[in-house]
Amino acid sequence: MSTAEEHLGLDLKARMRALGAAARQAAGVLAQTQPAAKTAALLRIAEELRSAQERILAANATDMAAARARALSGAMLDRLELTPARVAAMADGVAAIAALEDPIGQVLARWERPNGLVIERVRVPLGVIGIIYESRPNVTADAGALCLRSGNAVILRGGSESVHSSAAIGECMSLALEASGLPRAAIALVPTQDRQAVGILLADMSEYLDVIVPRGGKGLIARVQQDARVPVMGHLEGICHTYVHASADVDMARAIVVNAKMRRTGICGATETVLIDRACAQTHLPGIVGDLIAAGCEVHGDADTRALVAECRVANDQDWGREFLDAIVAVRVVDGIDAALQHIRDYGSGHTEAIIAEDEKAVSRFFGELDSAILMHNASTQFADGGEFGMGAEIGISTGRIHARGPVGANELTSYKYLVRGTGQIRPG
Amino acid sequence: MSTAEEHLGLDLKARMRALGAAARQAAGVLAQTQPAAKTAALLRIAEELRSAQERILAANATDMAAARARALSGAMLDRLELTPARVAAMADGVAAIAALEDPIGQVLARWERPNGLVIERVRVPLGVIGIIYESRPNVTADAGALCLRSGNAVILRGGSESVHSSAAIGECMSLALEASGLPRAAIALVPTQDRQAVGILLADMSEYLDVIVPRGGKGLIARVQQDARVPVMGHLEGICHTYVHASADVDMARAIVVNAKMRRTGICGATETVLIDRACAQTHLPGIVGDLIAAGCEVHGDADTRALVAECRVANDQDWGREFLDAIVAVRVVDGIDAALQHIRDYGSGHTEAIIAEDEKAVSRFFGELDSAILMHNASTQFADGGEFGMGAEIGISTGRIHARGPVGANELTSYKYLVRGTGQIRPG
Repeated sequence: MSTAEEHLGLDLKARMRALGAAARQAAGVLAQTQPAAKTAALLRIAEELRSAQERILAANATDMAAARARALSGAMLDRLELTPARVAAMADGVAAIAALEDPIGQVLARWERPNGLVIERVRVPLGVIGIIYESRPNVTADAGALCLRSGNAVILRGGSESVHSSAAIGECMSLALEASGLPRAAIALVPTQDRQAVGILLADMSEYLDVIVPRGGKGLIARVQQDARVPVMGHLEGICHTYVHASADVDMARAIVVNAKMRRTGICGATETVLIDRACAQTHLPGIVGDLIAAGCEVHGDADTRALVAECRVANDQDWGREFLDAIVAVRVVDGIDAALQHIRDYGSGHTEAIIAEDEKAVSRFFGELDSAILMHNASTQFADGGEFGMGAEIGISTGRIHARGPVGANELTSYKYLVRGTGQIRPG
Repeated sequence: MSTAEEHLGLDLKARMRALGAAARQAAGVLAQTQPAAKTAALLRIAEELRSAQERILAANATDMAAARARALSGAMLDRLELTPARVAAMADGVAAIAALEDPIGQVLARWERPNGLVIERVRVPLGVIGIIYESRPNVTADAGALCLRSGNAVILRGGSESVHSSAAIGECMSLALEASGLPRAAIALVPTQDRQAVGILLADMSEYLDVIVPRGGKGLIARVQQDARVPVMGHLEGICHTYVHASADVDMARAIVVNAKMRRTGICGATETVLIDRACAQTHLPGIVGDLIAAGCEVHGDADTRALVAECRVANDQDWGREFLDAIVAVRVVDGIDAALQHIRDYGSGHTEAIIAEDEKAVSRFFGELDSAILMHNASTQFADGGEFGMGAEIGISTGRIHARGPVGANELTSYKYLVRGTGQIRPG
């Protein structure tokens, strides 16, 4: 490394740390800000996004042109692209977050001790949240708004593909914060695409960050878990399974499986593997697989599946536990619930699994013996979503076991403190 | 490093990883174990501890002799020493944990969505917990029992001072687990004092550990936060403040301050700094400081304090924010609540702070503007304790903001999963 580069590196670290210090200070202000003031700022953000639509679309066009030049995949381009409808949906999403109940100050529990001490557990913000994410520019608005609702300052580091789009969205949020009398630093974007910035965020800013939330592929998550010197709220991939038990209603199974796989193939709650009991394979499998193929899905089946539906491709060992994020599914015939549970334990990522069954005993075993963040009965895995859970919005689905699990909404971005009221109690002994 | 040492190092890693794999497997069994079976095992542990009293005391005598030979401080020796009464208290503590409500399977929340999906949030164990702690051998029993109650397997790494005591206690737990039909590996002690074992625990066992809880001094915590590749539940030092507001009842202030400092000086909830408002210094300070001195406390006062009580030593800059863990206290006169809040923000560790005041407005500011894990009004900071909070027992006081804050009891050693019941719902759109 040349001296000039070293200097630049140091300069970047100093700039990043200044960003962190400003966020820490903003978090102190936000923690003391009344719910109504945060609501007003959120509505103002929604307004700014609506009125800046042209500017945001122009910035997005720049990103799209660069992405096309780099020959990104169709799925990636779709995730990156903004349209008037998508910008409007982004603004509506922020307005919906403005309408959420403010979590800060909520009394989570209250009890009195025999000595008369009254103990309350009260929600407080986490502080400063770092979010590292890829491609989709609407995350910038969603994450910024959710953090503001929950009284947290946030440092956002989006993907390089969406740099212009995110900057335009970030500018709207800054303007709205300023107009609302709140610190601009409450929602900050890392102002450089220098890849060293991620390393600095992970390792050199521990006094300014309370938690890091990575949203992205395996590579990003692995790097964050390796390098982070602050707590991480993990978001692993979603290798979701739908298991069709022998007792499943065949029409329900067909409707759920095709929805779980095909409604949107690029989200983490999409089913990637379908397991079908041997006892109902004859009756259920051809309809289920036929529906998938008719819906445009490429089916990779094991030998038993292919024996029933000849149009399937051969499933190889890499297909089990693979996150296709595409119109591709792996289908396997299993010998009853024990084999299904074992397959899910062996190949799942602990995100979301569904069982289709009429037999309550099977459901009870599925719910009790599996340990994924979300387990579903007779419903589509595509419901694995903060909005569908009634949380208003989400920052992602946590597959970690610490702090939050499943959809991470405003409540999950909080901590608590204890307030203890006495009348002069001293501790004996 | 010689080849022989390398071989030993590799061997240690393999042994540690085998310990982790066994703990992971035990965690799977515990997660499916009924509350009554865990209760029976806990009562059996208490019984084994009682009947092994002689063996435990003999092991402790070996540790004490070694500690005396190394000339450990009186406070350290006191923490290390076991007596018949302390062994009995340890057994009683485990029996008390056996009597706690089992947290696993509790439905934390349940709601229905407009589409008919019924969502439940249900408590599950964290999985495998690693605990690294220093000196006090009773932590071995407390931590093992709390983890068992909450359905977690645990790997315990105690201090080298208490190695024989901990091994004797661990043997009781192993026997009790086995006699109860539960895996011995559910409560495991790291079987070597090799210091490399801590490094392996922190960095090379991430697939076997869900969280690490360090309990100890600054050096240990800093090392864990630097090296850990798994989530850490932080336990920083307790730099607790008691602030005497101008509106404080003088008798109450005197009784609380002397208790907060002197009841037990070696616990993390002991007050280390007393702040007294200038407006009441004339009336309140001499009595408060006089009581402390009469109780055998060495008082380090600022100039204003010394002007009122000549027997004080000079407080230097290092005394603010210092964890004495001894019969020493720093006393400072402050200009009202703003100065008190600023002092606590500058020097506190976010553990526990108390305000003595009759003025509700001052209390409200103290509770609202400070962000420690525990804030108290008109009560001794020595109440910062899981038992005193009604949690039955604690593994420590978390000063982190992620997952658990304040006393960490059985509930705080759990995560949750979502169970979603449908009737064939598919996600539209």
